[in-house]
Formats: sequence, C-alpha cells, structure tokens
Amino acid sequence: MSDLTFLFGVHNHQPVGNFPAVFKKAFRDCYRPFVEEMATHPGIKFTLHISGPLWEYMESHEKACWDRIKEMASRRQLELLGGGFYEPVLSVIPEEDRQGQLRLMSQFLEEKFDIRPRGAWLTERVWEPQLAKTLALAGIEYTLLDEEHFHYAGVSNIYCPYMTEEEGHSLVLFPIDKKLRYLIPFRQIKDIHPYFKEIEAGSGLAILADDGEKFGLWPGTRKWVYEEGWLRTFLEYLERESIQTMTYSEYLDTRPSLSLVYIPPASYEEMMEWILEPGDYRQLRKLKKAAPQEARRLLRGGFFREFFLKYHESNHLHKRMLFVSRALCQPKPSEPEAARELYRGQCNDAYWHGVFGGLYLPHLRQAAYFHLIEAEKKANLHQGWEKTDYDLDGREEFFYRDAVFGLLAKPSFGGSLVELDFKPLSRNLSDVLSRREESYHRGREEEAGEGKSIHELAKELPPEAEALLRYDWHPRFSLLDHFLHPRTNLEDFRRITYGEQGDFVNQEYEPELKQGRLLLKRNGHVWVDGERAPILIKKEIEPRDGQINITCVVSTVSSGEIPLLFGSEWNLYLLDDEWEEKPGKLILLGGKLELEFAPAPEIWHFPLQTLSQSEEGYDIIHQGMCFLPHWHLVLGQKQNFSFSAILRAKNGI
Amino acid sequence: MSDLTFLFGVHNHQPVGNFPAVFKKAFRDCYRPFVEEMATHPGIKFTLHISGPLWEYMESHEKACWDRIKEMASRRQLELLGGGFYEPVLSVIPEEDRQGQLRLMSQFLEEKFDIRPRGAWLTERVWEPQLAKTLALAGIEYTLLDEEHFHYAGVSNIYCPYMTEEEGHSLVLFPIDKKLRYLIPFRQIKDIHPYFKEIEAGSGLAILADDGEKFGLWPGTRKWVYEEGWLRTFLEYLERESIQTMTYSEYLDTRPSLSLVYIPPASYEEMMEWILEPGDYRQLRKLKKAAPQEARRLLRGGFFREFFLKYHESNHLHKRMLFVSRALCQPKPSEPEAARELYRGQCNDAYWHGVFGGLYLPHLRQAAYFHLIEAEKKANLHQGWEKTDYDLDGREEFFYRDAVFGLLAKPSFGGSLVELDFKPLSRNLSDVLSRREESYHRGREEEAGEGKSIHELAKELPPEAEALLRYDWHPRFSLLDHFLHPRTNLEDFRRITYGEQGDFVNQEYEPELKQGRLLLKRNGHVWVDGERAPILIKKEIEPRDGQINITCVVSTVSSGEIPLLFGSEWNLYLLDDEWEEKPGKLILLGGKLELEFAPAPEIWHFPLQTLSQSEEGYDIIHQGMCFLPHWHLVLGQKQNFSFSAILRAKNGI
Repeated sequence: MSDLTFLFGVHNHQPVGNFPAVFKKAFRDCYRPFVEEMATHPGIKFTLHISGPLWEYMESHEKACWDRIKEMASRRQLELLGGGFYEPVLSVIPEEDRQGQLRLMSQFLEEKFDIRPRGAWLTERVWEPQLAKTLALAGIEYTLLDEEHFHYAGVSNIYCPYMTEEEGHSLVLFPIDKKLRYLIPFRQIKDIHPYFKEIEAGSGLAILADDGEKFGLWPGTRKWVYEEGWLRTFLEYLERESIQTMTYSEYLDTRPSLSLVYIPPASYEEMMEWILEPGDYRQLRKLKKAAPQEARRLLRGGFFREFFLKYHESNHLHKRMLFVSRALCQPKPSEPEAARELYRGQCNDAYWHGVFGGLYLPHLRQAAYFHLIEAEKKANLHQGWEKTDYDLDGREEFFYRDAVFGLLAKPSFGGSLVELDFKPLSRNLSDVLSRREESYHRGREEEAGEGKSIHELAKELPPEAEALLRYDWHPRFSLLDHFLHPRTNLEDFRRITYGEQGDFVNQEYEPELKQGRLLLKRNGHVWVDGERAPILIKKEIEPRDGQINITCVVSTVSSGEIPLLFGSEWNLYLLDDEWEEKPGKLILLGGKLELEFAPAPEIWHFPLQTLSQSEEGYDIIHQGMCFLPHWHLVLGQKQNFSFSAILRAKNGI
Repeated sequence: MSDLTFLFGVHNHQPVGNFPAVFKKAFRDCYRPFVEEMATHPGIKFTLHISGPLWEYMESHEKACWDRIKEMASRRQLELLGGGFYEPVLSVIPEEDRQGQLRLMSQFLEEKFDIRPRGAWLTERVWEPQLAKTLALAGIEYTLLDEEHFHYAGVSNIYCPYMTEEEGHSLVLFPIDKKLRYLIPFRQIKDIHPYFKEIEAGSGLAILADDGEKFGLWPGTRKWVYEEGWLRTFLEYLERESIQTMTYSEYLDTRPSLSLVYIPPASYEEMMEWILEPGDYRQLRKLKKAAPQEARRLLRGGFFREFFLKYHESNHLHKRMLFVSRALCQPKPSEPEAARELYRGQCNDAYWHGVFGGLYLPHLRQAAYFHLIEAEKKANLHQGWEKTDYDLDGREEFFYRDAVFGLLAKPSFGGSLVELDFKPLSRNLSDVLSRREESYHRGREEEAGEGKSIHELAKELPPEAEALLRYDWHPRFSLLDHFLHPRTNLEDFRRITYGEQGDFVNQEYEPELKQGRLLLKRNGHVWVDGERAPILIKKEIEPRDGQINITCVVSTVSSGEIPLLFGSEWNLYLLDDEWEEKPGKLILLGGKLELEFAPAPEIWHFPLQTLSQSEEGYDIIHQGMCFLPHWHLVLGQKQNFSFSAILRAKNGI
C-alpha cells in the first residue's frame, strides 16, 4: 500500500460560439474516450469539471458520455465541480451575475446528477481575494489555484490545501502542482514515478487539476493518450502501486489541519505574462532569468483586468457587458432567459488573448455580442437614446436602441460610432480588431526556447507576415473623419504610410442630443503646406423608421483655398462574401442592409487582417473590412462640403 | 500667472488609544499651527483629512483649531475628506463595517461642517480593487493612492487623475507624487521650484497628499516648518508665483478626461516592504537595486493581509475583530453604540508593524481589545461556551463569555488559552507579543543607507539588544504544557536555551465540551534519555461563578520512572506593578484577580521584552510577563501528577 494520495482533477471547456465541428471532434477524440477509460477503472477516484457550453452540448449530442459520467458520479468514483456555468472570469463580472452563474451550475448538477457541488472550478484560475466571499456565499467550500498563486503569497509547500478568507468568509484552496501539470499526460510512467515517490516521502499528497484537452485534443495527444495507451498505462500504474486516489471533497472529509493564506490577484504564470505589453513581457522574462529561485514571489506579471487596457476591443466588450448587466437589473432582475443570454455573453474566451485565439477569433467575439444583444432583446429594454459614460473615461457616450439598430456613439473619440448592432441578426457589425504588436511577433530569435511545452514553442513567422506587421494608430471605429493629402492612395492608407493632416480622428467632439438626433461638433484643424487652418465639422446622427441618417458638414473660416482628400472611415465585421459595392453604396449581408453615401464617393476598401499564434503555427485572420468613402474637395470661406450616409435595413428581414 | 495647478492634501491621524499627551503635543506642535498658518492665506486652497479619533479630541479639547477649520471650510478654502471614521484598513474589515465607518464620517462632516465629503482618505493607502465598489456605494467619488500603485499597473504618467471600476462602479484615483512627498516640507523652495517648473511644462498638475505629522510632529519639523518659517515661505511662494491651488473636487469639476486603470492590491513602497519576512525583504532590496527603472512595475513587495501571517498576534486581533463583527450582525445589526465600539477596535495601527510602533505598542493593542470587549458587552451577546473555527485553521476553537471573564481556548495548539479577558476592565490579559526577527534587527551594515528620509535611516542596535534578539519558537499563549529537563533553570527558560522534552506545547489536543466544562486531552510523548515515553495529559476548564477552575492530570502507561520538570506556561499582559507573587499564587491588578495553583509550585517569571525601531532609535518594550509555575515530578505507571489552577475575581470589582 502506497503512502501517496493522489487527487486527480480534469477541467473540460469549449467556448460559447465555438464551431459545432470542434465540439464534435473534442468529444470524439478527447472527452468521450477519457471518460470511457476512467469508467473501466472504478477504483480510481477523480474530479471533473465540465463547463456549461459542454454540458449543454453533451446533453443533446453525447448521451453515452453523459450516462457514463452519471454512472461514475452515482457510484462516487467521480466528483463533479461547480463554477460559473458559462465559464466567466468571475472577478470581472458583477457580483449578482457571479452568484447567478454559480447558482445555475449548482442547480444544473443537482437537477441532472443529484449532486450539490462542494468545489468550484475557477475560470482560468483568475484569482482575486474577494472571490473567497463570492464562492462561500454561493455555498462553495473550495477551489483550485496554481502553485504560482501560492508562491506569490510566500508559500512554498504546495502539497496540501490551505484556507483563505474574505471578511471572515472562508474558502479552502488546493494548490495545483505545476510539475505534475507538465508530466501528465506528456511523459512516460518511468518519468512520473520518481516524482510521485518524492511526494510520497514528503507530505504524501499529490494534487493535480488541469485542462482535459491535454488528453486527446492537443496536437498529438489523441494518439499518445489512447492509441498508444498512455492513460490506461497510467491508471494501471496507480492501481498496481496501490496509490490512493480521492476526490477533493473526500480528502477534505479527512479533516486536515489547514494553514491560512492570503493570495494576491494572480493566475497561472503564462497568463500573467500574456497580459503584459511586449516591452514589459521582455523585461519580465529577463528578470526571471536573472533572479534567484527564492525571489520569484517578488516578480509579478500583469493583473488580469489589464487586458481591458491592452486591447480596447476587450474593454469595449467588457464595458458593453456591464452595461447590459446593469440594464437587466433595473428596476429589478429581469426574466431568467435574458439573464441566461447575458451569462452566455460573459464566457471568458473572447475577453482576452494569450498565445492562441480568444479575442483574436471573430466567431467568439460575435457569439459574445450575439448573446448580449439577445439579452437586451429579451429584456425589452428602453428604446431611443440614452446617455452614459459606459467606458468610464469621464465623458458621456450615447446609446441608441430600436427594433432594428443599436448604436453607440463616442463623441470624445472622433465623434465616432464604436458600436453598430443589426438587431434582426443580433449582430455587432462594428466588431473588428485592430492590428497591434504582440510579443510573439518577434519570432524565434528573441524568444529563445526555454521549455518543451507547446505554450512556449516559439514559431517562425510566415513570409507573408511582414505586410501584416503594421500597427494601427487608432481604434478601428466608424464615422472617423480623415483629412489626407490629395495624392494619398489606397495602398498608403492600408499600410498606414499616409500622413493625417487633420486633428479629428482621435479627438473630442462636443455632443448634443436634440429631438432624437445626436449632434457632434468639433472645431479642429488641418495642416496644409505647413499652415494650420481651422476646420469645423458638424455631424448629425438621426435614427428613424429602421434607418439611420447621418449628415456631415465640413467648413472653414480660412480665407485661402484648401485642397484635400476627405474620407469617412467605416470598419465593419463582414466576411468576404457578405458585401458588394454599387455606385455610391455598399450592399451588406446579402442585401439585408444598405449603406449609401451622397454625393457618391469613391470607396476604398481592404480587409482587416491580423497575425496571431495558433496551436499549429500562425493564423492570418480576417477581422472585417475597412471602407473609406472619400471625396476630393477644396475648402474655402464659401466652399463648404457636406455628405450624407444612410444605413437602411431592407424589406424582407 | 503660472500654468501650474497644485492640489495640496494633508492627512492627520492619531490612533485610538494613543496617550492623551501625544494628542496634546500633536495639536500644539503640528495640527494647530498648520491650520492657523493656512488660515492666513485664504487664497490657497487645500484638502484636509482628519481621522475620527482626532475629530473627537479636537471637538472637546481644541475648539480654536476646530473653528478655524470650520471657517476655512465654509469659505471653500478647504475641502474635507471622508474615510473610515476610526481609520480602519478598509480591505480587511467586513463590507457592512466599511459602509458603517464611511457613513459615520460622512454624517459627522455633514452634521458638524455642513459638508458631504466627495473624496475619501484611504487608510495607509492599502488598496484592493474591490474597494472601488465599496467607496462608490458609500457615495465617494474619489480617493488618493501613491504613485507606486500606478506603476504596478504599468502607468507612468502620474500627473493626472484616473478612473477605475469594480463591477462597473467607478471611482476616480489621484496619484500622489512621491517626489513631492519627499520635497515637502523637507526641502527649501529653491529645491522645490525646479520640480514645479518641470510639472508646469508637462501636464501642469502637481498632486500631493501626505501625512500632516510631517508638518511639526516628526523630529525637527516643528522648528523647521514654523519657527524657521518653511510653511509661510512655501505659501508665499505659491502666491508670488500665482500657482493655482485647487481642492481635489474643484479639479474634478473642471471635467478632465480620464483614462481607465486597474490597480492591483498595493500600498506605498515602504509598506509593501515591511510586510515581508526579513529574508524576502532582503531579496526585494537586492532585486530593486539590480533591476532597471522601467522594470519596477514587475517587482512587488507583500500583500497587506500577509501581516496576519507574519504576526500571529495581528492575526488573532483581526480574527477576534471579525468574530465580534459577526456576532454584532446576528441576528441583526445591533445598536449603534456597540457598532461604534467595534469600529474603534478596527483602528488600523495595532494591526500591523512597519518600522515604528503599531502592533509593538501594547497600549494600542490594549485599546483595540478594550473596544472589542466593550462592543461585546454593549451588544449583550450570548453567555456561555460557543464553538467556532474563529481563525480558520480547519479546527474548532472554544469561546466562553460571562460577566467577568472571556476565554478563548485553542485545542489544536497545545490545548492552550489564546485569550483571557477580564470583563470588568475590558482588558485582554493574554495580549502579549512574541519575540521574532525583524529586518531592522540586522543593524546598519546590512541595510546600507539609501536615502535621507527618516523611514530609511537605519540605526545602530543598542548594546543591551543582544539578549533580546532571541526569538520565540512558539506563540506566547497560556496553559502551555512543558516538559523540561530537571536541571533546567529560569535563565535557560528565558533565553530559550532549554530542550523541550515533550510534544505538547504546539501540538493538537482533542476537545470535548461537557456540561459547561471544556475537556482537552492529548496522548503525546516525552523524550527521556533517548527513549520516547507515552504521556497522557487531560485538562479541564470550568468557568463558574466569577472564577475559572482548571485542572490538569498528567499520566503515563510507561513502566519505568520518568523524572521531569513539568511547567504550565502563562503569558499575561501585566505591567511591572500590576502583579505580585504570594506562595502558590499570583495577585494581579491590585488584587482584583488572583491566580492560584495547587499544589503550590515554584513560579519562574520574567518580563517579555521586544526590540523595535522608533523615530528616536530603538525601543525596548515591555510586552507583559511570562510565568512558569512548575513542579518536579517523577511519573510512572501508578504515579500520576495533577494540579489545579483557579483564576478568581475578587470582591469589590
């Protein structure tokens, strides 16, 4: 009989909005074979977390897998973990929603499996200390954090659970052994055995919880784990060595004495690096290499919420989500179906970016917005204009809602449209992504291989990447007013090798709401031949009867004549086949929408493409289209310029 | 007219329980002359925070100062800041108490000065992100943090306010300029002027908020600031240069555009170093010296809550406070007077230790316990025994309350008494402090002077310090069972050069509550001549009729005879003149209490003394008395040993 106790936990998740084919493959190659193998070893206890999107898919598509889990749960081989149902990062959603998401999962497990979860999986292990209270109030006794969390707290023994508290509300924390995370399932038993022996000689408790996708979905693992039998071999090893397996709750029921810890906000080590801007990322890597091991608690990467500062698109999604959440709570919590849509819209994946996917994947962002818009529709919110500083920059923004459109205008940044929703499809058309520097853009030379995990395998940049490594100098909002030199061409504009002659794109406009119309005004300037000429722009946005009428007047009091190329930039999330150009207008979404400009402009366009890392190498991702309807004009004291834009929903929607 | 705007804030605080003479001196040398000087410069706007203990003292003892403040407030020269009334570290008290403390201050300022505060002073600038919600819910618009907080968030421009949010609740944050903190009031105008000019050429906004005690109470500053006229000279300089002064609220009313920040838990730089254990402290200093300036955001000291792990006395006070807070809330918030006592007991100073005072000062700890006990008395809490894991170690502790005594027994640690309250005086008699290593114990050579601030002036250790640099191996609880070698003497015991032969002092006892008596049992061992003999200790604690009866039986099933010195260690907070020894007993507090042992033992005793830093150098502080009633005994199969201890309140209380 071994003196080792092994707590084995597995966490399975696919994002809301991921492709059905991915769900299907994940069950075929990974989740189902894992569960089936475990079921043939009834003596091996383990703990499983399955996120809400997977539960929902499993219930309707993977009944055999579902039944196997139920069978193991009912014979107590398996403990099921709770957590936020749609896998939100708990610390960045409102407390009411945290409780709602946790309750949804607990009720689901109780209803379907007759199990009230005692533990919770913490999405991406994004810890903030106040979550102890949140989880305790939701009836949760424990959660799991990475060993790094404990190191930051000055704790070196990660072979036992700890207790923490917030305002006296207590929560047990199990440290996840990082070495085991790297060994299982990637190494052979002969490599794992010595580490188990080492733990046995110490505290005798080995604690693991890790992504289930490592058991079949990560590249090469299906063959390794199942065809070549790693999992069966490992389970037989546990049986042969009489290593005692327990669920986390079973272990807690042995009533271990617990030490108190206070853990600062943290996540796993890689996550805290991904949050950093490239410069800080390189600094941290350097410091980590130079610092002695015992000093690592003093070296800290970023704070998860900084993703909202690193990516304004992430910030917009987050603040938009908070706006919906607030709207649903006023005057009182609205119906469960609207709340469920909100919760779906809180699924973490689209809110951040590490090395793979996340925010960079338009289908995940679209899914988040889809559900937020659905939530608004189901909650029957107020129609018309609404003023609010939704993104907390000390300036007011203007929301507009009706049955066809949702708009969000940001006077303080170019008098722009930062969101444009087409309600019949619950589609956020403004959901594009800017091109920006990522630390992995530097390629292998500067990254220097430091390990074997696929997290760290730096890859060569593809040859066509160079053209994508131009970084945008402003967010890709819409209705942005550009003044360019008359000789600027599309290629200059696309490659950002033009000179902006006006000070309008990222500057403040004065807003005024008047009889259902939003007026935006800026007294700015253009630089022409070294001279600075005053320019006034007045824009008006008037949504009415399923269309949005926009007018824009550009004028000057300057005495001379100013030749210019004036363009109105629009960035729209459209696939290649979702738009076509007709004279003076754009036909969108197979004719469901039309965007017409008058006088008829020339319209430059190019696809917005980003370069990001994926498990297979690099991805070039189509993030939408940039359109620049533009006009050559000469401004002067008596020569105003004005144009109109009409966004029109067509019949038959 | 200067283009510089200067926001000048001052924070004044004295702890609950500080000596009246200190309050008196502080007003005479510092607070009053400061206010008087400011009042003669009506054109200079400033912002003032005064903590509750000072407001209460001022109202009854310093009417002139009070009136001057009222006069300046009513002519809008002065903005008054809110905050937790009794200056608690907000992040470590329950949300209900945070709101209660903030409300108390806001109501106080409204009632007395007709001002509803818009900003709050954050005690010791101990920031955790959830406080944005706490403060916003309390109607607070802004607070002030150190520039270090912003650096940790990757923000380098500290010359403007920012916005943060928690769950969508927003809060403005002003960064406090560290360079200004070091310049004002310590340097001459000619040294300050260039920095002001530098800021004027940049953002044009200089932000300062700092401890008011620097203006007269810190060593040498009274002479410098008032007699030599630094303050008047400085204010005249501001007037002469036409530097615009504003209150923080006035500045916010100019409607500045604000950037979003997310700030991880932090405090000022020194505080985050003080939290660390000496080894980590030295590591951090080393890393800071070696790392480039731009990497400093990645280097992080400790998390404030870790003070509870560094000092078990701080943890006990904190968990005891939470226990009282919880008791007061059940079944519903109790009367305001009990809550006010609780809030007084939350005053931060006794909860932590930096370089000066705090936890090391018995009168501050005593004041905290005094008010917590008063809160319990005023709330008419349940009498008798109560089981609870008050300190969250996964083990139950046993509270006992009646009209005369409060007890807290901790079976899991030596079956000890960790608290012993004498209710008639609201005095926690068990409130002593262990001797432990502090980073400043190493003296000057290792600390290397790095600046001129008195924070950093390392001082030589006094020659008598050596004897105090012995560190306790266990907390100084009471009713601890020692087995010592028969030849051990008092000096061995005091200097911790004895060998402990039993495994009882810091080990687990089994508890059982039975008919009003707490039984504590441990099957342990003693080592005698290289042999390990089994020993059973049974202790019984029975409070009844104003006295506490304790019996203890020591027995063995060992066949041989075991000669031993058995002692029962008691550590009590008593001044030198508060106790005397009579045969077999101790007369305490001028006869109000008696602790009698039978059979009559010899009682060793020595004062518990610590060595800590103070503004003037080093302090040797009397932290209480250690008593070791002990008996020479020979244990064997038929030779049990038992003793009784009776703690008795005498008549006439």
